[in-house]
Amino acid sequence: MGTELLLGTTINTDAADVAVLLSEYGINVYWQTVVGDNPGRVAEAVRRARGRADLIITTGGLGPTCDDLTKSALAEGFGIPLELDRGEEAWLRGIWAERGYSELTPNNLQQVWLPQGSTPLRNDWGTAPGCYFEREGVRVIMLPGPPGELRPMLEHRVRPILAALSDGVIVSHNIHFFGIGESEMEYRLRSYMQELTNPTLAPYAKPGECLVRVTAKASTAAEAEEMMAPVIERVRREFGDLAYGMDGTDLAGHTVRLLIERGVTLACAESCTGGELQKRITDVPGASAALLGGMVVYTNMAKASLLGVPERLLEEKGAVSREVAVELARRVRERLGSDLGVGITGLAGPDGDGAHEVGTVFISLADGEHVWVREKHLTGRSRALVRLHSCQHAFDMLRRYLSGLSVTEGGPEA
Amino acid sequence: MGTELLLGTTINTDAADVAVLLSEYGINVYWQTVVGDNPGRVAEAVRRARGRADLIITTGGLGPTCDDLTKSALAEGFGIPLELDRGEEAWLRGIWAERGYSELTPNNLQQVWLPQGSTPLRNDWGTAPGCYFEREGVRVIMLPGPPGELRPMLEHRVRPILAALSDGVIVSHNIHFFGIGESEMEYRLRSYMQELTNPTLAPYAKPGECLVRVTAKASTAAEAEEMMAPVIERVRREFGDLAYGMDGTDLAGHTVRLLIERGVTLACAESCTGGELQKRITDVPGASAALLGGMVVYTNMAKASLLGVPERLLEEKGAVSREVAVELARRVRERLGSDLGVGITGLAGPDGDGAHEVGTVFISLADGEHVWVREKHLTGRSRALVRLHSCQHAFDMLRRYLSGLSVTEGGPEA
Repeated sequence: MGTELLLGTTINTDAADVAVLLSEYGINVYWQTVVGDNPGRVAEAVRRARGRADLIITTGGLGPTCDDLTKSALAEGFGIPLELDRGEEAWLRGIWAERGYSELTPNNLQQVWLPQGSTPLRNDWGTAPGCYFEREGVRVIMLPGPPGELRPMLEHRVRPILAALSDGVIVSHNIHFFGIGESEMEYRLRSYMQELTNPTLAPYAKPGECLVRVTAKASTAAEAEEMMAPVIERVRREFGDLAYGMDGTDLAGHTVRLLIERGVTLACAESCTGGELQKRITDVPGASAALLGGMVVYTNMAKASLLGVPERLLEEKGAVSREVAVELARRVRERLGSDLGVGITGLAGPDGDGAHEVGTVFISLADGEHVWVREKHLTGRSRALVRLHSCQHAFDMLRRYLSGLSVTEGGPEA
Repeated sequence: MGTELLLGTTINTDAADVAVLLSEYGINVYWQTVVGDNPGRVAEAVRRARGRADLIITTGGLGPTCDDLTKSALAEGFGIPLELDRGEEAWLRGIWAERGYSELTPNNLQQVWLPQGSTPLRNDWGTAPGCYFEREGVRVIMLPGPPGELRPMLEHRVRPILAALSDGVIVSHNIHFFGIGESEMEYRLRSYMQELTNPTLAPYAKPGECLVRVTAKASTAAEAEEMMAPVIERVRREFGDLAYGMDGTDLAGHTVRLLIERGVTLACAESCTGGELQKRITDVPGASAALLGGMVVYTNMAKASLLGVPERLLEEKGAVSREVAVELARRVRERLGSDLGVGITGLAGPDGDGAHEVGTVFISLADGEHVWVREKHLTGRSRALVRLHSCQHAFDMLRRYLSGLSVTEGGPEA
């Protein structure tokens, strides 16, 4: 609930967060309604929801300002008085004392007036508690609106309620992939997905990669795992080494952790990605154990002066070439004294250079003996996507190298 | 409308996009409803909407698959038959011929069956046209769901309809700021905001910066501009050179464009930001005219070997120091032969180094004569935010240098 959603200045991520959790417990969502901070319309939304749902979840409108009116609207809609919850009051006074705030004002105390007989849901990530009650077969859960409060409340307060209501447990695993699109994945899995009812399979697209979620409902977690094992096995067999991991982070995080675990050091020379690869590596805390450093050789001058790429090679082959990619990886590795070197050179667009198609990129990986190069034609993509996918290929080459898989289809360049 | 929103796998950006456009025309949004691809619930949503709104906008459910049922539900709800629109049919057949697709199937043709008497809204960004009709004082606009189609449809098809319906024009300007928070801005503008009814003022937070939007409604654009001029003047006077521009891009884009316009070249040496600054510079097409290149000197070894920062200085002062920041900017500028050099060194966390508070960052700017250093204590922020704000300070120092403003409070370091 919230006027800011109706103005469009805030995007409604709360609705999606609630829906994801509900779907984990097999609870079907039929309606999502957004209304402004207006008592009449909030009351009407409550009336409608009450007539058509077994479970009503509200987000927002629990705070101390005068436009926060969810609790009174819900209480009125269900004919329940609000009363001061002594336990939450004590907790709130404790916070005020701890933070050295001045006396609690009546509008701050308003946060701990809850529908009579409801169970407070302690909000350790904010100051407005949520609450839970059941009336005439309808269950109501009220939650705070800020995503930073809502998400932990869903995980730590709502999940146990749903688990208690649900007859059994729901367990999911995500299998992560690079090198295949969501639609091809869906196409190849379609008939198998249709055969399955429990566990279920669903592919999801993420920026530059995708995943398949396997979900089982069973009476115990162990039983759910047992049911999922053959499904996971079959998906992994279907796609082979395109799967890079399970239940982990994205490809960048996975690869950086592999580097750190194996004690392998890295240096990078980036042209068209302009620092994005190194930025993404250093998004991971502790990355200094893996990335010694590197260069952004965005101009030909920088390629020559920082790395000594021969100017003749740059002239003859062009900066966007297999040969220059080889030099970038090899020379940055030598320059930093790292185990591995990675180079990226390409044309991210939107303007062309008259010689290559926009989206032509060469990604290279050097160890002490060999250099591998991938040539990609990431055409029809925005500048941002060409750069993102170029980095994804660099991560994929690294993770394949570290996992003993073939780095490129054709083998090393040199 | 869409099941994927109720599952939470897709976040509802459409609702926000529609709301933003409506607010520009002063149209109040009272309800946003999401229902799945279910005929009964779509029909109920239409019935409800019809009873309480003057304007109904739907997104999604116009395509050729069997779960796309918005048009039939709306037509039924308003008692209007659907009929094949000959103009849209010819257009669709033209697309099929142009792309060399096989014969149009009946479910593809379903896209061009529209409510009798409605005005088709040509979809040049997809294949399912939208439409517009009015019945008994209620206006209905149906639009495609994919954001890549919805956004241009809103701009090019819906905006003219709203402009025609609205008695006058609404014009907005955004004044962009760096160096002040949204809440301080709101605090200092509050009483002025309350005085105003037309134009209106509203502050908005963006990642690492904020903006104030001034909006006026008038009978002509010129009149609106005239009404806004004194308001804009007053806001700019209040915040002085914290405002960096109007109606432009963000601080990064603004700064890169300034560099390109002035023909000033740049080189960067990044430690804790790990490439993020250079990544953001090169997000801007044409950045090679400004950024010659640079380094990611993530380790002390890299600071010494790539830039020749004296190892003794690194030991005595530590990598996170004013002195090392000075060396980074000065040396990377010399190394690349650029007009300006920027250096960033700091502790982004989450782990400390035993010597500094997490969030301690030094940002430096060197020209041929001077070096300026900002020391920031970006405490209580995530690693990602410390890095983001460090880059924002680098952009701010650059834009102030290029605009002839003081770069730091205390003047140059050396």
